[in-house]
Amino acid sequence: MPRWWGWGSLDTSYSAEEHPGLGPFLSAHIGPPFRGYAVPALESLSLPAPTSGFLSQVFSGVLSKQDIRIDRLSRVGHALGKSYTDLMRIRTNTIAHAPEAVLFPRTIEQVELILDTCERESLAVIPFGGGTSVTGALDAEQEPTISLDLENLQGLSGLDEVSHLATFGAGTLGPKLEEALASRGFTLGHFPQSFEYSTLGGWLASRSAGQNSIGYGRIEDAVFHLEAVTPRGRLSMGRGPASASGPSLKDLFLGGEGAFGVIVSATLRVRPLPAKKDYRAYFFHSFEEGVEAVRELLQTGPKPSLARLSDACETQAGLALSGGPHGAGSQLVRKVGLRLVETLGYEPGHTSLLLLGYEGGEREVEDGGSRAMRVCKARGAFDLGHSPAKEWLAERFLHPYLRDLLMDWGVMVDTFETATSWSNLVPLHAQLTGSARQALGHGFVMCHLSHAYETGASLYFTFFAAQDLRDPFEQWDRVKKEVTDQIMKGGATLTHHHGIGRFHRPWLEGEIGARGLDGLQAMKRALDPAGIMNPGVLWRPS
Amino acid sequence: MPRWWGWGSLDTSYSAEEHPGLGPFLSAHIGPPFRGYAVPALESLSLPAPTSGFLSQVFSGVLSKQDIRIDRLSRVGHALGKSYTDLMRIRTNTIAHAPEAVLFPRTIEQVELILDTCERESLAVIPFGGGTSVTGALDAEQEPTISLDLENLQGLSGLDEVSHLATFGAGTLGPKLEEALASRGFTLGHFPQSFEYSTLGGWLASRSAGQNSIGYGRIEDAVFHLEAVTPRGRLSMGRGPASASGPSLKDLFLGGEGAFGVIVSATLRVRPLPAKKDYRAYFFHSFEEGVEAVRELLQTGPKPSLARLSDACETQAGLALSGGPHGAGSQLVRKVGLRLVETLGYEPGHTSLLLLGYEGGEREVEDGGSRAMRVCKARGAFDLGHSPAKEWLAERFLHPYLRDLLMDWGVMVDTFETATSWSNLVPLHAQLTGSARQALGHGFVMCHLSHAYETGASLYFTFFAAQDLRDPFEQWDRVKKEVTDQIMKGGATLTHHHGIGRFHRPWLEGEIGARGLDGLQAMKRALDPAGIMNPGVLWRPS
Repeated sequence: MPRWWGWGSLDTSYSAEEHPGLGPFLSAHIGPPFRGYAVPALESLSLPAPTSGFLSQVFSGVLSKQDIRIDRLSRVGHALGKSYTDLMRIRTNTIAHAPEAVLFPRTIEQVELILDTCERESLAVIPFGGGTSVTGALDAEQEPTISLDLENLQGLSGLDEVSHLATFGAGTLGPKLEEALASRGFTLGHFPQSFEYSTLGGWLASRSAGQNSIGYGRIEDAVFHLEAVTPRGRLSMGRGPASASGPSLKDLFLGGEGAFGVIVSATLRVRPLPAKKDYRAYFFHSFEEGVEAVRELLQTGPKPSLARLSDACETQAGLALSGGPHGAGSQLVRKVGLRLVETLGYEPGHTSLLLLGYEGGEREVEDGGSRAMRVCKARGAFDLGHSPAKEWLAERFLHPYLRDLLMDWGVMVDTFETATSWSNLVPLHAQLTGSARQALGHGFVMCHLSHAYETGASLYFTFFAAQDLRDPFEQWDRVKKEVTDQIMKGGATLTHHHGIGRFHRPWLEGEIGARGLDGLQAMKRALDPAGIMNPGVLWRPS
Repeated sequence: MPRWWGWGSLDTSYSAEEHPGLGPFLSAHIGPPFRGYAVPALESLSLPAPTSGFLSQVFSGVLSKQDIRIDRLSRVGHALGKSYTDLMRIRTNTIAHAPEAVLFPRTIEQVELILDTCERESLAVIPFGGGTSVTGALDAEQEPTISLDLENLQGLSGLDEVSHLATFGAGTLGPKLEEALASRGFTLGHFPQSFEYSTLGGWLASRSAGQNSIGYGRIEDAVFHLEAVTPRGRLSMGRGPASASGPSLKDLFLGGEGAFGVIVSATLRVRPLPAKKDYRAYFFHSFEEGVEAVRELLQTGPKPSLARLSDACETQAGLALSGGPHGAGSQLVRKVGLRLVETLGYEPGHTSLLLLGYEGGEREVEDGGSRAMRVCKARGAFDLGHSPAKEWLAERFLHPYLRDLLMDWGVMVDTFETATSWSNLVPLHAQLTGSARQALGHGFVMCHLSHAYETGASLYFTFFAAQDLRDPFEQWDRVKKEVTDQIMKGGATLTHHHGIGRFHRPWLEGEIGARGLDGLQAMKRALDPAGIMNPGVLWRPS
């Protein structure tokens, strides 16, 4: 059962009891918990009344009745994504807009007919995969809007074992995709934080990067062929492993967030399941020394599959919060970690935790792991062994559930992220940490480096503060504006893997320039002249 | 001194004396040489008279006098690229169009002023780098046209040694770029066939792939940041090692071939010069077995830096033509090869030569090389050692000079290329070989696999036939149409690294669809509303 007002499934939640360090940690850093906005009953939510009651009739020639849903749960569940402010809209009962209906096409032809109909009837269309956007990419902004849920366009439709190519429907959820591949001995290796509830189509539309992106590439690196439907017709993109056939049109739809059309299927480069995995953790004396170690591994190889370096604040938070259902090992680490900090000269205010994963053939993984250990130790690192990394792997998809608990307790919690060159990384980290702290007032800011490249890496920040119950949206807007202004001022990219959505659109011109925006808008007009496709995503409609 | 009527520099040529096998080889396969069209004197070329004599005056406020050239050599040298038909236009004295003037801006501001002026005066503008296009990307199609030569926007303008990022002007020639990097301990590793005479801007505009693209990536993989000037203003693209900030605008300029604007500089990922290189050659019993070996190396690693597998025809031709100034080793190989073919069961009609190169750290290269040897031997390969690869490395930039000699002898000689998935590769090779042979009549067709990826590889064909002196253009058109139709019918990409230019534009719709073309054309209208930028490249102007 999906948690319509929060993350994931109602079967799972983040347990305060199993994480006894949480309460004291929050009290120490942002003040005592208090009662935030509670989740209202579904029935009590104010939803905009449908403006065009004839929808079922309009689409009756296109879809069968059970594939057109207009019930309250479907409408609320498709009105927003899963950002902090989306969930606060629900808690504060201020959902401004919601789709009139949610459509579930079963064929690409039905998608085409839906877009035709929507254009004719002036209905906005928001393609919907797993609904996990944290940038407002799914937030309806006008009436009437239709949510186009790709749930039924899913599954493995072709596997070329010789070429390592697999074709999937865009609506395929992460776990289904990996299960289908694993049963044939393959993996895509794409594990974003949202993995359990997000879809291939969503990954493609938002240029997603999985946690193992160093080893397996970003989602766009895996795309061999893409099929999309626009209001002006179908597009087939990609006829080879690489091409010089003019501009890469594929790269318009990747990151297009539904503004140009709907991605309906993709053929992806897959890989044999790795024979071996080796995940290991290290303590560094400082974030800076950890950065140098990761940089060296990326630039001289062998490259790890995953590298995730927490700054001192995130390392402290991790130690404080560890100890969940999978946390036996971590409790040991906490003790070891604290003793190290005391006796081996690792200072609590500086110690940084690095998780490093190698995946692949036996020999490759052994070579990688031992080389990595040499590089890390040469920079003063302490080898913490496998258990912290194992705990992280076991709990990594649990973290978003924590947010719902924190919102119950009146905590504003969100993340922001960027990427920049190695030479700019440490200064930018300091600048953004400082800006975020100042914007929050009494709050907590932590960060990790991840998704590293030869030329730079991503910085991923998480922040907490007590909610301003009078106007939690104004509070969040202020912080968001400040940190995003600083990202742009710091010469870094607006977003490395969350996407633009609606929250980042004021800064897109800063990223690609006024002329770049002109070019993209002209393409949209050519493919979607009536402007029905996810209007307001990427840029505000003129 | 550049060879305005052929390839490269007048200091270098392909010597028939040093390649004694050439004459007999041609006689055997396409018939005896005869006298083709001779190169006319520069003075005797019919050039369209300038239509707008006021050009020097128009640009006098923008450029100093020596940066505006209207002499005959400059005009002819910028009227065409270096394709077979371009060179035949010169030899048959049928240059239809030529630029009125060649402009050599020294600053980005001058580029902006030139585009402003051209828009105001309705002058077409063709950005010009090294002039080595083989797809008609530089061929003026109308009067008045201006050639915008980027020669003076060149050189290394910044090196971030920490981030492995180097910034160059777009007009930087391959050797200058590598020299500048080598003096600081770095390399880009981009070595297209045209390396000596092509520029960074040209590589970027045409999505070039160097011969070591397996190891160093295609040019688009190396781009961190791109600066371009359009008639509507400047564009800055790329603010991080990767981004999810909407569609990748960079990827619309890469491959844009000057249709949207002029690329003026780029920041590229560079790498430390490799500590070690190991290039080695193998004989396989068949092309198919060689393909399987390359596929295995690409899919299970360690990946080579270069893999180049000649089919049986190219292997035979290579043996026949080897023995140039660097060919002592190769003559040995020819003898060894011929003996092998006789005594070890390698059949002449099937034997395929593989060149395999590893570059990087000592251990990495040793591991790669020995693993490769195991994989190749398991597929029945015979290790030919280092000398054939050394000869190839020494002579690789000499091959285009052969064409000028062949044209003297009345030979039609050209190449075509594509890329496809591994499972489609061998059937497509057979299909394209057959189609080309049929289209040529009495001719010779050979091919190599190169630029391999996990999911597939490129096929690069070379063909020879006696020229039809009555209408060499019609003869070439017929072959080109036939093989390109077959590439598209075979589900492969229209071009893997030559680009679209003007020759491939009839098939671009087959590659990206009518809607894809609509999208690109709309973007062009937004950035270049007067349509002055390289009109006719990518698609025929409406």
